[in-house]
Amino acid sequence: MKGLKVAVVGATGLVGQEFIKILEQRDFPMNSIELLASDRSAGKKLFVNHRELVVKETAPASFKDVDIALFSAGAEISRYFSPLAAQAGAVVVDNSSAFRMETKVPLVVPEVNPEDIKLHKGIIANPNCSTIQLVVALNPLHKVNPIKRIVAVTYQAVSGTGSAAVEELTEQSKQVLEGQNTVPHVYPHQIAFNVLPEIDVFLDNDYTKEEWKMVEETRKIMHAPDIAISAVCVRVPVFIGHSEALHIEFSQPMAPDDAKRILAQAPGVKVLDDPGISLYPQPWSAAGTDDVFVGRIHRDVSHPNGLVMWVVADNLRKGAALNTVQIAEELIKRDWLHPGEAGK
Amino acid sequence: MKGLKVAVVGATGLVGQEFIKILEQRDFPMNSIELLASDRSAGKKLFVNHRELVVKETAPASFKDVDIALFSAGAEISRYFSPLAAQAGAVVVDNSSAFRMETKVPLVVPEVNPEDIKLHKGIIANPNCSTIQLVVALNPLHKVNPIKRIVAVTYQAVSGTGSAAVEELTEQSKQVLEGQNTVPHVYPHQIAFNVLPEIDVFLDNDYTKEEWKMVEETRKIMHAPDIAISAVCVRVPVFIGHSEALHIEFSQPMAPDDAKRILAQAPGVKVLDDPGISLYPQPWSAAGTDDVFVGRIHRDVSHPNGLVMWVVADNLRKGAALNTVQIAEELIKRDWLHPGEAGK
Repeated sequence: MKGLKVAVVGATGLVGQEFIKILEQRDFPMNSIELLASDRSAGKKLFVNHRELVVKETAPASFKDVDIALFSAGAEISRYFSPLAAQAGAVVVDNSSAFRMETKVPLVVPEVNPEDIKLHKGIIANPNCSTIQLVVALNPLHKVNPIKRIVAVTYQAVSGTGSAAVEELTEQSKQVLEGQNTVPHVYPHQIAFNVLPEIDVFLDNDYTKEEWKMVEETRKIMHAPDIAISAVCVRVPVFIGHSEALHIEFSQPMAPDDAKRILAQAPGVKVLDDPGISLYPQPWSAAGTDDVFVGRIHRDVSHPNGLVMWVVADNLRKGAALNTVQIAEELIKRDWLHPGEAGK
Repeated sequence: MKGLKVAVVGATGLVGQEFIKILEQRDFPMNSIELLASDRSAGKKLFVNHRELVVKETAPASFKDVDIALFSAGAEISRYFSPLAAQAGAVVVDNSSAFRMETKVPLVVPEVNPEDIKLHKGIIANPNCSTIQLVVALNPLHKVNPIKRIVAVTYQAVSGTGSAAVEELTEQSKQVLEGQNTVPHVYPHQIAFNVLPEIDVFLDNDYTKEEWKMVEETRKIMHAPDIAISAVCVRVPVFIGHSEALHIEFSQPMAPDDAKRILAQAPGVKVLDDPGISLYPQPWSAAGTDDVFVGRIHRDVSHPNGLVMWVVADNLRKGAALNTVQIAEELIKRDWLHPGEAGK
């Protein structure tokens, strides 16, 4: 097939950088790439496949002849530029929260609901990082034994907030180790050697928006509007890799060995589960990898149909950039770039 | 009343040091104090109430004339020396796991089950850190609306492991910040900028012993053998302060405002709950304080009788040394040092 023209919006951000790495690593079938960012970052130079490219300021005209636009520059930028990109003929895969819950916008994790991609009208939404690893690990079990309820508690890395947060954790850690005081800028309180049960804004029901995303997005992706879900989302002093402690209630009892067998064959999942040798997923080792790692799979003694699991993934890769690129790959592989023209 | 003779076993450890601080701060009614430790630490000098004292090696004869012996030197030391101390006439308050689940040994959190102290036969057990803060926060609610099920997920500080772990987190953090490799000694994997879902050994049911302590000790302290409990215990790169995300299922619906009102009046509890100004408990701010802090109290949308809470306490103080000293204070206040002689 002919190579495509790709645009990356938010190219200088943590996820944008990861977009470029992943497009290179997976040898994405593109002829050319436009690197777009805010005016503040315009003029910066980045290497893509050993070629130096200049980052341009995102503008309404940026999407001429672009086939696929990968967005990760925040909800506001997406809300403004995604429709313009779609009008210009590009298919947008958007990593922001802007369109995720819009009925007509597919919200996709390729291992779970690839068929939804076909329904796009020019914009496809990439889910929130914590949701992606959750549904990759749970959907294979849900298909065998429908899930009734999920209680998810997270340990989320600062890279989910962006590069300023990575810098804040670095600086504050040094300051604490040197006995100095810290002053928070990115987070409301010190994050070094601390944990903060606040990610994104608080809603009227006293859940945070991050927690509520896990509720709503999980139901939409899994086509399971009736699953009861509660989440507590917590920022921890980790650079890369989100971890989740899950208590799952199934329709029927779920033997841990069955769950392990199903997950061992599930796409995108790697089971790391041997307590005897302290083998379980950890964010430090998951960083830079593509799988959703699952371990500590065992019966929940507090519920007859309960199972406990520990799920870890690289929040910048599977939790963001990789999943977005995988959606773009499906678009190409299944010839769904222009679904209106399908069958021609 | 006459001053008492107190012995501290494990005086040079993190909890031992905290014992001394708390005895001083609370002006504990003691005439003299024996500082005991392993032969490795014998000869060290420590200050108590501005007097320099020499640490002695713990020996069978160490407990002559001792009225109260506070133990925090590990289960093995407790198993050997506690019965000897009790035989010598001391009342032992033991912070190890050695006797906690023995039927005839009271397991006590003074805010919850002070009356159990009276049943002692010379040894009283202090619960595990994660359990203490859990029951202080939950028992006041349980008395009003019996709890059916607890799902607890923890964020536990390295000081719970001891001073070598504090050093390991410090050293590894420096190494990571300087781009060096780390080598784990205390934990099976790197703890700096990482999280580890393994605390204490794994049991046959694939829970860890730490997780199982929360199940069994909570039931014993609250006299509630039927509460269903599951816990996931996770070590995080925090120096002091354990945090817990709790999903609680009550017998009847529990309005968050009622829970807040009850907890605001509960002994040993401080409610910090104002999401609008990012007010919630954090381990960094809880370190060095005595209360069990509770926040993020809200309805659990996934269960009709569910409530979500976030509970933080200083694991060395309320989670260990303070609770032990509080038990000793009750012994004195209620004249239960020698319960057989009560009424004389």
